[in-house]
Amino acid sequence: MKVVLLSGGVGGARFARGLHAVLAPDELTIVGNVGDDLEVLGLAVSPDLDSILYTLAGRSDDERGWGRSGETWNALSAAAEWGGEDWFRLGDLDLGLHLVRTQALRAGATLSEVTSRLVSRAGLRLRLLPATDEPLRTLVATPAGTFPFQEWFVARSHADEVDDVRFDGAVGARPAPGVLDALREADAVLIAPSNPFASIGPILAVREIREAVEERAVRSVAVSPLIGGKAVKGPADRMLSRMAGGTTPGHVAGCYEGLIDSLVIDEADLPADAAVDLVATKTLMADREAARRLAAVVLDVACA
Amino acid sequence: MKVVLLSGGVGGARFARGLHAVLAPDELTIVGNVGDDLEVLGLAVSPDLDSILYTLAGRSDDERGWGRSGETWNALSAAAEWGGEDWFRLGDLDLGLHLVRTQALRAGATLSEVTSRLVSRAGLRLRLLPATDEPLRTLVATPAGTFPFQEWFVARSHADEVDDVRFDGAVGARPAPGVLDALREADAVLIAPSNPFASIGPILAVREIREAVEERAVRSVAVSPLIGGKAVKGPADRMLSRMAGGTTPGHVAGCYEGLIDSLVIDEADLPADAAVDLVATKTLMADREAARRLAAVVLDVACA
Repeated sequence: MKVVLLSGGVGGARFARGLHAVLAPDELTIVGNVGDDLEVLGLAVSPDLDSILYTLAGRSDDERGWGRSGETWNALSAAAEWGGEDWFRLGDLDLGLHLVRTQALRAGATLSEVTSRLVSRAGLRLRLLPATDEPLRTLVATPAGTFPFQEWFVARSHADEVDDVRFDGAVGARPAPGVLDALREADAVLIAPSNPFASIGPILAVREIREAVEERAVRSVAVSPLIGGKAVKGPADRMLSRMAGGTTPGHVAGCYEGLIDSLVIDEADLPADAAVDLVATKTLMADREAARRLAAVVLDVACA
Repeated sequence: MKVVLLSGGVGGARFARGLHAVLAPDELTIVGNVGDDLEVLGLAVSPDLDSILYTLAGRSDDERGWGRSGETWNALSAAAEWGGEDWFRLGDLDLGLHLVRTQALRAGATLSEVTSRLVSRAGLRLRLLPATDEPLRTLVATPAGTFPFQEWFVARSHADEVDDVRFDGAVGARPAPGVLDALREADAVLIAPSNPFASIGPILAVREIREAVEERAVRSVAVSPLIGGKAVKGPADRMLSRMAGGTTPGHVAGCYEGLIDSLVIDEADLPADAAVDLVATKTLMADREAARRLAAVVLDVACA
């Protein structure tokens, strides 16, 4: 069984870990968001791809919710001593990866090539593909102005309400090699419980990816990131309220119009109604077993 | 009193700390070796400039003899996990500086501009100038082949005997801004107890610097890096034996023919004879006070 998962960062990474536990290693292809990517201290940082990599490789700090376990922060504090930026929290262990990636990119490798090498180094057999190798950056329009995603999310603590999300570079961006083939060969397409606007939006902003999902011959199933209308973490609920008009399963499904056949929601969101089939279960991925169980339910829905 | 010091790494940095303790802060200009500079994990590293900066800023690990005190090594070990190079030991605190420097260089700053900013950030008022802003790299010719300096020194543990030292990029390299003015306005020119071939050689390989020292109207004094014909640390004695024919004060002075008026040597090297005046004292800089005392002796010689 071949499965393609469209995924953002933390929630997506946990769901991916669940899928990885259920599927055979080579059955899973993850297409990751790169709209949050940024340059920090001259290094190319891909937060969502890294969250997935760290989580699947057993290196993530599950309590903090991002970055690596056992992390230290000495390089960043030294950089700040010398006048460098320190608003984006890069730990020392994390920096090791960014150094290797940045060096490879400067030597001419593509982001998908570098990512593939990192997955191999971690001893993983799944495929982790950036949505695109080209620069595609999420811009967040707020009453206070338009900001690059991480500036809004981290530096401004996502305090500003969001009126619109745009994807700089999306027009003309090609899917990374392997993405379209994976979608065409998939037995199921899944959308992780990630922010529909900020995490999945940038992936679907790549025209050929959106078209491939629209034209699928197999089932496509999304998992709602909301539980009882609330985000587990982050601003997804506030963004849905303001930009989609509400936080019910119907509003979540509306973000994926024409792109999914079913939406898996939490039991806390029942009763509910939407333009697609709704399947209710427990969606909180409190631990690995909960993620594995959710993944199994979603695969059942996709293969029904 | 205005003093210019030509300096390599560790020995030079300790001597610079002594001078810094004796002179008023704005009386000292240090011209540092850049022949050892290299790129590691895509970062621009200037080991000798950094040794001087760390030592004068009170951040050096005097016991280990290089790098910063309180250093950790997590980023490098993570980089190695992901397939990155780890032969050149960059600590986390050290990396902070290299990140800031590399980012500034890529943004178009010169090495001397970046170095000046770092000195200011450290709250220091002396001037620390790279010999040149242009790429000048020391190559070490050995029976096993010719290697970039750090590959021979670190990766090969300077085990190969050295037949010759060359300076790639030296032809046509201009002194960094301020170097010639500092030499012309100096009341004394000093050469630190650094390796004449590997540390001072690359500075003097910049034609206009060598000419400015040759044409000086003031006294120039070098401090021998050898004690009893032996290097305190490193390969200076082996290089002098093989390339200058011996390790006496006469051989050291021979490395600076036409460039110095006096050579300060250790009492352990008496009796001695050379083509320049010899002044014997205790030259081992075991602590800050010893370095301060040596600096005072050298300044006395320069102002005699």
